[in-house]
Amino acid sequence: MNELQQLSAQMRQAVNAEMKAVLHATDDTPNAFYGMMHYHMGWRDEQLQPADVNAGKQIRPVICLLACQAAGGDWQQAVPAAAAIELLHNFSLIHDDIEDASPTRRGRKTLWTIWGTEQAINAGDAMFALAHLAMNRLVDRGVSAETAVTALRRFDETCVRLTQGQHADMDFEQREVITVDEYLAMITGKTAVLVSLCTELGALIAGADSETVEHYAQFGLNLGLAFQVIDDILGIWGDEAVIGKSASTDILTKKKTLPVLYGLNHNGALRQLYEQEQTDEAFVKQAIQVLNTTGARDYAIERATYYSENALQHLEEAEPTGSAFTALNQLSDMLLQRDF
Amino acid sequence: MNELQQLSAQMRQAVNAEMKAVLHATDDTPNAFYGMMHYHMGWRDEQLQPADVNAGKQIRPVICLLACQAAGGDWQQAVPAAAAIELLHNFSLIHDDIEDASPTRRGRKTLWTIWGTEQAINAGDAMFALAHLAMNRLVDRGVSAETAVTALRRFDETCVRLTQGQHADMDFEQREVITVDEYLAMITGKTAVLVSLCTELGALIAGADSETVEHYAQFGLNLGLAFQVIDDILGIWGDEAVIGKSASTDILTKKKTLPVLYGLNHNGALRQLYEQEQTDEAFVKQAIQVLNTTGARDYAIERATYYSENALQHLEEAEPTGSAFTALNQLSDMLLQRDF
Repeated sequence: MNELQQLSAQMRQAVNAEMKAVLHATDDTPNAFYGMMHYHMGWRDEQLQPADVNAGKQIRPVICLLACQAAGGDWQQAVPAAAAIELLHNFSLIHDDIEDASPTRRGRKTLWTIWGTEQAINAGDAMFALAHLAMNRLVDRGVSAETAVTALRRFDETCVRLTQGQHADMDFEQREVITVDEYLAMITGKTAVLVSLCTELGALIAGADSETVEHYAQFGLNLGLAFQVIDDILGIWGDEAVIGKSASTDILTKKKTLPVLYGLNHNGALRQLYEQEQTDEAFVKQAIQVLNTTGARDYAIERATYYSENALQHLEEAEPTGSAFTALNQLSDMLLQRDF
Repeated sequence: MNELQQLSAQMRQAVNAEMKAVLHATDDTPNAFYGMMHYHMGWRDEQLQPADVNAGKQIRPVICLLACQAAGGDWQQAVPAAAAIELLHNFSLIHDDIEDASPTRRGRKTLWTIWGTEQAINAGDAMFALAHLAMNRLVDRGVSAETAVTALRRFDETCVRLTQGQHADMDFEQREVITVDEYLAMITGKTAVLVSLCTELGALIAGADSETVEHYAQFGLNLGLAFQVIDDILGIWGDEAVIGKSASTDILTKKKTLPVLYGLNHNGALRQLYEQEQTDEAFVKQAIQVLNTTGARDYAIERATYYSENALQHLEEAEPTGSAFTALNQLSDMLLQRDF
């Protein structure tokens, strides 16, 4: 096992124990109110019997704790913040699934399909409040009240930006023209600010000076942006065997990702093509050809490279130390060096 | 003007200014994201043009500020908490309106009917996050970080109880039998804990000792319970001219309020009557007669009196002072001494 695997295994265990404490998850069968949340977390099945299913990659809390340790702190002190971020992420998934009418998540029925939209909205609200109570537990681990208040302020400023990103994402579905800048602002809100919160809170709780905290925040922000843009590239040009889904799905569904938006904004032929109602293999082939000739792939790779380099430079300027630094580098490699 | 009218006018003005600062409401037309929230608050119309409509009674923030002043504090320091509670209340209204499929609120279209369920869920989430940012502004008014963290913990514990109350309320609609105790637990969550948070945070921010803070919390809790039970009584036996709606509505809609639940649990004849699909004037007359003979009215009045007396006793034991105390008494009289 490398540093990342070793550290992240310990960290995930601590974060899950913390989340269970906050959500009052014990061996006893939960009541209907907490049961819905335990189901969503993968701790219970539909009948609220014990379950242990895939709870997602939980990369965010690991990034938070690694940043804390690399910035000279004790990662155990940041566990409440890491748990809070993972609960915040899960709250947003509960509401996103309603808003997107998604029937499944991580191979299981979504909350709203089992208990109805009304109760699912409410369960999300409850998890949002509980995420804040997780943050509040920072003071129980010796974090100063001043730092806790600052951390909570950044937490909620990030929540506002997440909802702004979600607003933009839903708004885009109703619109014909979306600029590349609007798209980048949207993914900043929907994806990057949450990764930025992870690294920022880790460094803040470690007691790093404000300049270092800002470098960690920028490392996370650029890491999140790079990851999303790479995801967009792989959704069109990725190796199906590697990414595990048909690389042409994003074209078949006419998903407006960065390369597509670049193409639509620079090439009338692609705009005409995308007015077509039906999509098929010929459509995919033609679209990819136009994207290639328009320079959409090159543009997206340039963006991904820019964000990746920015991320790593800010990490370097933050002067991280120890095995957590090694692990952060391994994690960045894993997230950023995907073949395209 | 009496003390209550004088103080509450000043306080409402300060709370509204604070809420506008938190929600970035200026003279400029807001963007679509903030615009939805400004519409809900009554500051903008559907086209996001300036409006100034009924924003509700705003009794909760006034109670919070009066408690702060009566407990020896400076009410200006508690304004962020009062604004946060009012924003929290409004967030819950946005989601309640979706969950209850309510088309109107305060004589205007509800958010979801204009912008759709998806964006309305998201706007509620945003206001929830912003309510927390309002709380965070306590430290900008010289409240210590320790007190702010404690206040935030109580704030989120209350949020969890609110969602628990809402869960129970929606659950009751699916169930045949609801006990009086279950009902009282539900209204505690849906109504009373928020009033309790108002008085508790007011006293906490004033720097009162923990025993006094607890008396204020109990004052608010019992005030909220008494108010709700009195509302239930007036919904059946109230004077139509005074309460402004037909007193029999709660019977016609077979709403399960405290007197009705008491009756259903103590009288088979009422249970039989309530199995009837259609309701009319004869149904109302018969139901009220059974409720009277079963002692449902007496029971509800006994409960209302018990909570009212409890509230006033805790207020007395909190040893409040000054014109804010006088105003708190006037407010309690207004809320509790309604004819029944």
